[in-house]
Amino acid sequence: MVKVGIYGTSGYTGQELLRILLRHRGVEVSAVTSRRYAGIPVAEVYPHLTGWTKLSFIDASPAEVAGNSDVVFTALPHGAAMEVVPFFVEAGKKTIDLSADFRLRDLAVYEKWYGKHKATGVMEKAVYGLTELYRDDVKKAALIANPGCYPTSIILGLAPALKAGIIDPSSIIADSKSGVSGAGREPQVGTLFCEAEGAFKAYKVAQHRHTPEIEQELSNLAGETLQVIFTPHLLPVSRGILSTIYANLGKKNISAAALTELYQSFYEGEKFVRVLKAGSFPDISFVCGSNCCAIGVTVDERTGRVIIISAIDNLIKGASGQAVQNMNLMCGFAEDEGLDAISLYP
Amino acid sequence: MVKVGIYGTSGYTGQELLRILLRHRGVEVSAVTSRRYAGIPVAEVYPHLTGWTKLSFIDASPAEVAGNSDVVFTALPHGAAMEVVPFFVEAGKKTIDLSADFRLRDLAVYEKWYGKHKATGVMEKAVYGLTELYRDDVKKAALIANPGCYPTSIILGLAPALKAGIIDPSSIIADSKSGVSGAGREPQVGTLFCEAEGAFKAYKVAQHRHTPEIEQELSNLAGETLQVIFTPHLLPVSRGILSTIYANLGKKNISAAALTELYQSFYEGEKFVRVLKAGSFPDISFVCGSNCCAIGVTVDERTGRVIIISAIDNLIKGASGQAVQNMNLMCGFAEDEGLDAISLYP
Amino acid sequence: MVKVGIYGTSGYTGQELLRILLRHRGVEVSAVTSRRYAGIPVAEVYPHLTGWTKLSFIDASPAEVAGNSDVVFTALPHGAAMEVVPFFVEAGKKTIDLSADFRLRDLAVYEKWYGKHKATGVMEKAVYGLTELYRDDVKKAALIANPGCYPTSIILGLAPALKAGIIDPSSIIADSKSGVSGAGREPQVGTLFCEAEGAFKAYKVAQHRHTPEIEQELSNLAGETLQVIFTPHLLPVSRGILSTIYANLGKKNISAAALTELYQSFYEGEKFVRVLKAGSFPDISFVCGSNCCAIGVTVDERTGRVIIISAIDNLIKGASGQAVQNMNLMCGFAEDEGLDAISLYP
Amino acid sequence: MVKVGIYGTSGYTGQELLRILLRHRGVEVSAVTSRRYAGIPVAEVYPHLTGWTKLSFIDASPAEVAGNSDVVFTALPHGAAMEVVPFFVEAGKKTIDLSADFRLRDLAVYEKWYGKHKATGVMEKAVYGLTELYRDDVKKAALIANPGCYPTSIILGLAPALKAGIIDPSSIIADSKSGVSGAGREPQVGTLFCEAEGAFKAYKVAQHRHTPEIEQELSNLAGETLQVIFTPHLLPVSRGILSTIYANLGKKNISAAALTELYQSFYEGEKFVRVLKAGSFPDISFVCGSNCCAIGVTVDERTGRVIIISAIDNLIKGASGQAVQNMNLMCGFAEDEGLDAISLYP
Repeated sequence: MVKVGIYGTSGYTGQELLRILLRHRGVEVSAVTSRRYAGIPVAEVYPHLTGWTKLSFIDASPAEVAGNSDVVFTALPHGAAMEVVPFFVEAGKKTIDLSADFRLRDLAVYEKWYGKHKATGVMEKAVYGLTELYRDDVKKAALIANPGCYPTSIILGLAPALKAGIIDPSSIIADSKSGVSGAGREPQVGTLFCEAEGAFKAYKVAQHRHTPEIEQELSNLAGETLQVIFTPHLLPVSRGILSTIYANLGKKNISAAALTELYQSFYEGEKFVRVLKAGSFPDISFVCGSNCCAIGVTVDERTGRVIIISAIDNLIKGASGQAVQNMNLMCGFAEDEGLDAISLYP
Repeated sequence: MVKVGIYGTSGYTGQELLRILLRHRGVEVSAVTSRRYAGIPVAEVYPHLTGWTKLSFIDASPAEVAGNSDVVFTALPHGAAMEVVPFFVEAGKKTIDLSADFRLRDLAVYEKWYGKHKATGVMEKAVYGLTELYRDDVKKAALIANPGCYPTSIILGLAPALKAGIIDPSSIIADSKSGVSGAGREPQVGTLFCEAEGAFKAYKVAQHRHTPEIEQELSNLAGETLQVIFTPHLLPVSRGILSTIYANLGKKNISAAALTELYQSFYEGEKFVRVLKAGSFPDISFVCGSNCCAIGVTVDERTGRVIIISAIDNLIKGASGQAVQNMNLMCGFAEDEGLDAISLYP
Repeated sequence: MVKVGIYGTSGYTGQELLRILLRHRGVEVSAVTSRRYAGIPVAEVYPHLTGWTKLSFIDASPAEVAGNSDVVFTALPHGAAMEVVPFFVEAGKKTIDLSADFRLRDLAVYEKWYGKHKATGVMEKAVYGLTELYRDDVKKAALIANPGCYPTSIILGLAPALKAGIIDPSSIIADSKSGVSGAGREPQVGTLFCEAEGAFKAYKVAQHRHTPEIEQELSNLAGETLQVIFTPHLLPVSRGILSTIYANLGKKNISAAALTELYQSFYEGEKFVRVLKAGSFPDISFVCGSNCCAIGVTVDERTGRVIIISAIDNLIKGASGQAVQNMNLMCGFAEDEGLDAISLYP
Repeated sequence: MVKVGIYGTSGYTGQELLRILLRHRGVEVSAVTSRRYAGIPVAEVYPHLTGWTKLSFIDASPAEVAGNSDVVFTALPHGAAMEVVPFFVEAGKKTIDLSADFRLRDLAVYEKWYGKHKATGVMEKAVYGLTELYRDDVKKAALIANPGCYPTSIILGLAPALKAGIIDPSSIIADSKSGVSGAGREPQVGTLFCEAEGAFKAYKVAQHRHTPEIEQELSNLAGETLQVIFTPHLLPVSRGILSTIYANLGKKNISAAALTELYQSFYEGEKFVRVLKAGSFPDISFVCGSNCCAIGVTVDERTGRVIIISAIDNLIKGASGQAVQNMNLMCGFAEDEGLDAISLYP
């Protein structure tokens, strides 16, 4: 059994990692840390885990966690992650970081959007863990920068079209809608039930920190530097992200059917990407509870634009599920080990 | 115009008072206090009030508020209310307190459930503001102890049966379900969207502080001291309380039809109580957004028990609406002035 | 008192009309028709109206309804409305039609999207009832084509920018999200609670019938024929539409502050439009339960695009509230009579 | 591989059976029938199953299904189930019926609550499939009458107390609250999103057909005939049942701690029952998505009553999960094979 530590387990992504790993047949969770809940049985903080684990939270140093783990997931806020990740990497532990700290390759861009970076030494070792696009690098990685939830939905949605040069790279608009779990478990007025239920709004319009991450990866796919408009919205659901993506057709026309075929062939053989037939579009309920990304595409011939709709569970494919998918590759497990849950419907 | 101050306006009941009073044709809101939001326009904290008011929150002493108000509502937590209520009462302001501080007539009972009482001097002046039962006293009151939300639903539901001696007073069980707004606007993990949505639980089982208030009023109606089982539950809705109340029939049998008639006659002429026809029971959606209480009753002949189901909007009839209803009586307005909103469906 | 008939009252918009009109001080509802519910008291079908009305549904001919009404609202599906509207218009009744049947001025466009039109004789009499844009025409109208819900949010959102020539008319993308009540009260699998809760999807992508209505009015504002991409989505809420609208800046640059000012001055004096300060954007919860439209705008200087976000209650400003607003103008009432409800929060 | 047919797969329980069985390592789903969807790929009706199965619905006779199945689940409405179940039983197929048709041992009781029974010949072969109580019988059964959702939660909640003679059998009140999926997938006004969201009501008060099933099993446990009050309510969630159960203490007193211990020892070794520590009570979110039943108990010493709160996922432990649990026993699989999903939180 591979021994796995989770560093920072009091939030939704830490919890989700644990929930997934408890059902993984190749690993044993060796440590779950939380300063706030130190000493408390996991099942008291997360009663849905009653009967599934006897672990208690510990408040442990990185050294202690490294001491009894082969793999470490860090599920801390950005800024905090960079304080511990170098230790794990240098200790030779396969490290998968769920924060934003190692996702941006350009230090200047990082510091513009997030502030001072304190672990530039390991930045270069980080592999951006969007599994479908970087599978080979992931297998050999010492450090995974696990992608953000919005970027995962948008990049998977645009990769085939950008790669094939179908769309005008300067015309991309991503209108994304996320469930409330994306805002974390720290109590704040804005994510109270009474504020979020029956409600819907955009937030951080044209200012969200996932923008440079999206632009970095899309530029890479397009082979040129591009900028996007990215508008996140808050949906009154716990889980799920749906991104509705618009772009102008490039020089050549393409039919909806041909575009669908292009997508199906791009993602052929992928276990976790479902390209829907032409004219069909995903609902977040198709994927919530699973590690899948569902994508539907069309071409609006009246206006010469492509519309791509992509849906994921923000906590699974958008965070902890993809992190485990990456671990599976790094450790030689089947890519879908522990990730075979079908989405819960209704 | 009657000048009205709201002392403590940063929570849901304070906001709801303001929302109602802004549409009341006989009053002008002269002050809304909030330590946290002092200096901030109300419409910034509560954007749904944009265009309806130009007020800003102030951090004012009771004396300042009394200085420009004829009527004062205090919407503070219990314990804090008793610090300011005596001032307003002694200053001759009609005072309506939405906390629990003046609801219990027996000091010992108060102190057992809530802790030390610091304003015993005005306790005796308080009239329990369940309008339908204490209308004449309310009209002459200097201080209203506005009822709790759960007690309002349960007492209105049981009053006719208890008063008529239909049920065994020792057998009452009230299984109540409340929307999340009853837990207030202070951020806590338990009332986050992700915790309350798709969820449902009982809480403070056999321990909720509304128990003595319910028992005081029901004992009064029954003419003897009684005890109840009261189990509150948290519903994944913002507003609404539904209480399902069980009691054994007393010595005499009664049919569902006759019981319904008894209820209809008890509440005849009441503007805000709707007794449904026999066999019909309320949904909280029948009353949310309105000041109404809807009641359905039946008799289970197989087991010899009465079932009473009562529904209110916890923030309106269960708090701020009933407070305004009381103010209307105290000030000589029509009892339904400002309270004629029909519930919002769907 | 003006006597008002509602022809077709079994759906959500018919119900909402009744709910609003029951609180209107200048009218008396003289007839509510419904084939399905004929003979049944309104309060049995809509228990939230218990105590507010003693009306029963009737299955009446247009002649019967016209016989005792001064004003008639028709709240039937498109296709059915055109069968009765001509009768009311010819009988000299002020008629307000909530269907799509009289919104499109170009018969060919109507027939392309909706099928054969059977009442072309009265088409020309219809005034498009987007009150803020056609106030003078509405006052004199014999027949109002009450706007669709999505178009109301999008047209109000774009009118100032298009009129002022700020944006490129060929670049408009409207990504709209609507509550489920927009899909009506007819039972279908897709709008069951279990299908819509926890879910979110786009539907009728690039094919929704509101597209020509939006294009007609935006072309009018722009002074040239334009086409839009319009993508409707289904939100897991009962009420509310939020449209996120994107357009490229035209030839001149404009700052977010200047754009906001332009909007504020365009809507100055309007009772039901709130332009938020620069950098603020609406939540549907700011307007649900009210007849208001809230709008926030910004300019993304990085990409040279304008983002406009507009929110309404789809059943009120998007349907029945705007219909009453139009009736108020037609009958000489204050424009906000019966429409002064503040949105219900939380 | 054991071949499994599902007869009647267009509803929520049929779908849930399929979702569970697709992840079961010992079976292969050989047929899924649906008259309505015959010929349509399962993944078109249930897009969340895209990529997980290539099955299409068939409209097949019982003989056809029996021809290629070792085990048959029947997921039809009561009345329809009894038309096909005898065929499968007589064909020697292990049969698990999810309807009410074979749950009641007393024909007269069945016919009083449900109408004429047409398959009395196999009634006696049926084993009531509440696994924890009838495990040995289940292993040998030819026909399982899979329990109702409400009865599962109530019987598991009361079994230890009744068996031990702790409570007065004549005093039981079960106040139950269920998610909307319990009402099925057939479109009706009452289960539309707009009717059920933000709503909460009791229904079939003192008249629900699960009453005789509950009474049959509780009488069995008590060793005497008893009657209960059972009040079902409709929660605005998709999944989950929480039953709050009240009963008077019998002749002897017992502390909350001792009662908890009694429960823990009764359910010791059970994989799917979690007895919470004294003073803790379940939320439906602790169990939804899993096959678990969580139970909390206490004693209200003031009134001499026991309060038991029991939570399950109505579609899993309350229907399809328990059905698979029974199949596992009948076929010699591990009891939790295919049922090891941890509930999805948040």
